[in-house]
Amino acid sequence: MKKSDDRLLFLPLGGSGEIGMNLNLYAHKGKWLMVDCGMSFADDHFPGVDLVFPDPTFIEREKDQLLGLVVTHGHEDHIGAIPHLWRRFECPIYATPFTAALITDKLAEAGLLDEVQLHIVEHDGPFELGPFTITYLALAHSTAEGHGLVIETGKGTIFHTGDWKLDPNPLIGPICPSSKLEALGDKGILAMVGDSTNVFNPKNAGSELSVRESLIEICKGRSGRIVLTTFASNVARLDTAGEVAKATGRHIVLLGRSMQRITKAAKATGYLKNFPKVLDEEDASHIPRNKLLILCTGCQGENRAALARIARNDHKHLTLAADDTVIFSSKIIPGNELVLGQLFNMLASNHIRVITEKDAFVHVSGHPGQADLKDMYSWIRPHIAIPVHGEARHLIAHAALAHTAGIYHTLVPANGDIIEIDREGARKIDEAPVGRMVLDGDQVIPADSPAMGDRRRASQQGFVTASVVLEEDGELAAEPRLAVLGLPTNNPDIFYDQLLDACEIAMDRMKPKQRLNDDSVEEVVRIALRRLCRSTLGKNPGVAVLISRLEDEQY
Amino acid sequence: MKKSDDRLLFLPLGGSGEIGMNLNLYAHKGKWLMVDCGMSFADDHFPGVDLVFPDPTFIEREKDQLLGLVVTHGHEDHIGAIPHLWRRFECPIYATPFTAALITDKLAEAGLLDEVQLHIVEHDGPFELGPFTITYLALAHSTAEGHGLVIETGKGTIFHTGDWKLDPNPLIGPICPSSKLEALGDKGILAMVGDSTNVFNPKNAGSELSVRESLIEICKGRSGRIVLTTFASNVARLDTAGEVAKATGRHIVLLGRSMQRITKAAKATGYLKNFPKVLDEEDASHIPRNKLLILCTGCQGENRAALARIARNDHKHLTLAADDTVIFSSKIIPGNELVLGQLFNMLASNHIRVITEKDAFVHVSGHPGQADLKDMYSWIRPHIAIPVHGEARHLIAHAALAHTAGIYHTLVPANGDIIEIDREGARKIDEAPVGRMVLDGDQVIPADSPAMGDRRRASQQGFVTASVVLEEDGELAAEPRLAVLGLPTNNPDIFYDQLLDACEIAMDRMKPKQRLNDDSVEEVVRIALRRLCRSTLGKNPGVAVLISRLEDEQY
Repeated sequence: MKKSDDRLLFLPLGGSGEIGMNLNLYAHKGKWLMVDCGMSFADDHFPGVDLVFPDPTFIEREKDQLLGLVVTHGHEDHIGAIPHLWRRFECPIYATPFTAALITDKLAEAGLLDEVQLHIVEHDGPFELGPFTITYLALAHSTAEGHGLVIETGKGTIFHTGDWKLDPNPLIGPICPSSKLEALGDKGILAMVGDSTNVFNPKNAGSELSVRESLIEICKGRSGRIVLTTFASNVARLDTAGEVAKATGRHIVLLGRSMQRITKAAKATGYLKNFPKVLDEEDASHIPRNKLLILCTGCQGENRAALARIARNDHKHLTLAADDTVIFSSKIIPGNELVLGQLFNMLASNHIRVITEKDAFVHVSGHPGQADLKDMYSWIRPHIAIPVHGEARHLIAHAALAHTAGIYHTLVPANGDIIEIDREGARKIDEAPVGRMVLDGDQVIPADSPAMGDRRRASQQGFVTASVVLEEDGELAAEPRLAVLGLPTNNPDIFYDQLLDACEIAMDRMKPKQRLNDDSVEEVVRIALRRLCRSTLGKNPGVAVLISRLEDEQY
Repeated sequence: MKKSDDRLLFLPLGGSGEIGMNLNLYAHKGKWLMVDCGMSFADDHFPGVDLVFPDPTFIEREKDQLLGLVVTHGHEDHIGAIPHLWRRFECPIYATPFTAALITDKLAEAGLLDEVQLHIVEHDGPFELGPFTITYLALAHSTAEGHGLVIETGKGTIFHTGDWKLDPNPLIGPICPSSKLEALGDKGILAMVGDSTNVFNPKNAGSELSVRESLIEICKGRSGRIVLTTFASNVARLDTAGEVAKATGRHIVLLGRSMQRITKAAKATGYLKNFPKVLDEEDASHIPRNKLLILCTGCQGENRAALARIARNDHKHLTLAADDTVIFSSKIIPGNELVLGQLFNMLASNHIRVITEKDAFVHVSGHPGQADLKDMYSWIRPHIAIPVHGEARHLIAHAALAHTAGIYHTLVPANGDIIEIDREGARKIDEAPVGRMVLDGDQVIPADSPAMGDRRRASQQGFVTASVVLEEDGELAAEPRLAVLGLPTNNPDIFYDQLLDACEIAMDRMKPKQRLNDDSVEEVVRIALRRLCRSTLGKNPGVAVLISRLEDEQY
């Protein structure tokens, strides 16, 4: 793309076709701007892997033209990939104070703090990055400092919503009045690129204040310990936990590393000013049970998080007992139903009361429902609507909603689509390479690399390795050895002997000349072993044959 | 247990603490009675495995005293383990005609048809099995011939509900009037052992008739093909699909093996008498799109089922296109959210309308909600309530509901609890061995066998095998060979060389005497390889070292 190129381009590398790992790019006049750089949590499709990232290859190749990474807010699906991918595109980062504090933590952990230029943007006023003039617009979300970005270019203005909702009482941060959004609409927005997460909710998102009031009611007069679990990043909800503690005469204790990390960042940037004194864990254990509120991580049932640990009585100081209450002030993220179900069962078996969003009003979302989206479109009135931050069905439903709201031009993007935006509308003009990376051990590798496929296959079918030692003339120099991984046999010794027999019979049947060729031996033995596994056990394992050919010193 | 033993015992081996794989036992006067023998579908905790069964070891040991297996109905979680476990306890089986037809199919497939005594029980009238007098009581459920069992013994009468709901218009089978259940209650029920699946639904289950009416309305005047997917075993729903086709002037085609199998069994036992003529697949492809209704399997997103195949355009004759409609007349079973979400996305991306139970009234459950349970307890008035067919939290909530309904004695069982039942109540008196089996390939093995653990570990961490060939004196006879499975490296050749170096350095450091001992060499090499994987990649793979020791022919 040349400097003289007047086009305005949009390219999502992550987040368009999935909920998670948002990475969006804009281009104008030969320069690129990155918005967010997030990760996803891996599901069972990636065994042994926790984190998934977008493949940044496209922007890595263009990194000389990359002006900066502007971060909308501090959720992992917007900042989580930064420490793992930053070396691939090395650019300055822009974020507001709380978000910057979280990014700083990550950079420090990755040893990148001295290398990355991290610019802290105060909330007001535009700043310029080459041909882009960027203004942070504070919007309510389920963390502190949620923002949309107003991105002005010579070709028109983009309103990139980030993650948002309408909340008349967000408890944390400013309230964004409709007048401000209407004024923005009056200036003329070429395209609104926006959050589709909750487009299937016909209502509005709801308010943090109403959750606070409900939680106080639910906790009042309750016997036993109360555990409140939520995403640590939800600063308003943490603040609410403090208010619940005060209103119910309970002391508060915080469990979980991210709970500590977020409250530290929040306090350092001016939030949680009225939060009550936090007990340390040992002191908390001495407080009467009905005077304690435990605020902890683990609302998705994560096995190593604080909640799962206290639930299975694996915490040094704090335990739960009959008549205690655990409140999940959180959503059940799709894919976590089974692991959360196990946790609910464990708690119920110990006669601990479990309250989730299915039982009582203990949670509101941070994403716009249909009512919020309609309001937003009525105020912004963009020329074009481009839904992002959703799976295909979310994006399609969002585009339909925008159309109903009077937005004539809509475009449903997919990761890798290079989209030109102008007064004629938005259209795909090209494709960028696109994919996923996983953090496997401490290596970032492509998600479709052989390591993942091989592990997946071994997990399904098992794996057999045979070691065959041959004389130079093709005779066996020793009995073959076998390593059998994960095959279903109730008589491993007998099965081992069967494999050995299969191996030796297959070799016996080879012509002497064939046995001189390692590849031939390898193939014959591999086929024989696999055939035996299939016929004897009904499994189809991977088979590796390691051939050692001895050198005949006599010649 | 002796013949003189007058106690009445209940022992669940499966289904108490889980939804799936029901296997319940009753004992009296030294004899055992089995009720149901079901399976579960495996989740990702058992990679490479589809089916899970209860461990029948306890009853296998008592099989001489086992009078029979009485089957309540034909769902897989009640009959699915029969072909896989029957050889372990070899007893006669009792079932009503439709259920027996399904069992017959399974036995034939397993080659057991000639060995198993399968008694077809007509719907009315009690039959005796030793000290047990058993009466089938027809109750509505989401398949044909759902039944509770009235089990009379010298110690009192058990009402084993099976899976049930109240349905004023079940469409298939008789309506069970409350008067009949009240009359049963009047005779005096010692214990009701019953379905807890839907105890968290505050309402009643709802009626098949109302789903039929709703589906007809939804399908009327719709353009394009309509695909209706549901569990094939839901005969009333299949009948409804036929009625929808007739009411909307569409021809019907059936896709999926179990759809064919169930309709065959249903027609053979007197159901689906008014079902319209079924087109074959090729003929169906020539029918105008708005004149075709496709009834198919795959409502849980199963990858190999008919729906997933037509969705990804992988069917010989039938395809979907923009403006077609897919109706999921089914529940989303917990754990299937992600795979179903992928299917919804695929369909939405092709502009196919998707209607699920979240969007419209297209499904009712086959299990009792709280309203149904309260009615049932008011009619049966058992002395004791024993909730089964649920996870721990379901059983606990069901027991609490029974208590509220005036049942003073409740007991929450767990698989393996041997429970004595008498006028004093129900109490655990002992424990039976309990566990799970999996069908892995064609082998039935314990779910906690090393094969599963090894595969799980390999899927997370990878696996390395080294072959080391040693002279008798401990010198390496050839360069070690390595098989590396599933390790995350972008440079496999370099990593292979690093492993080789680690292997050789470790051996070099061994004392000559140590090298004479295979176990020592194995351990040293294993530790060296594992350490390298950890330090280089951050992975902790399993490592197998295969040692071949050459015999020195000179001595």
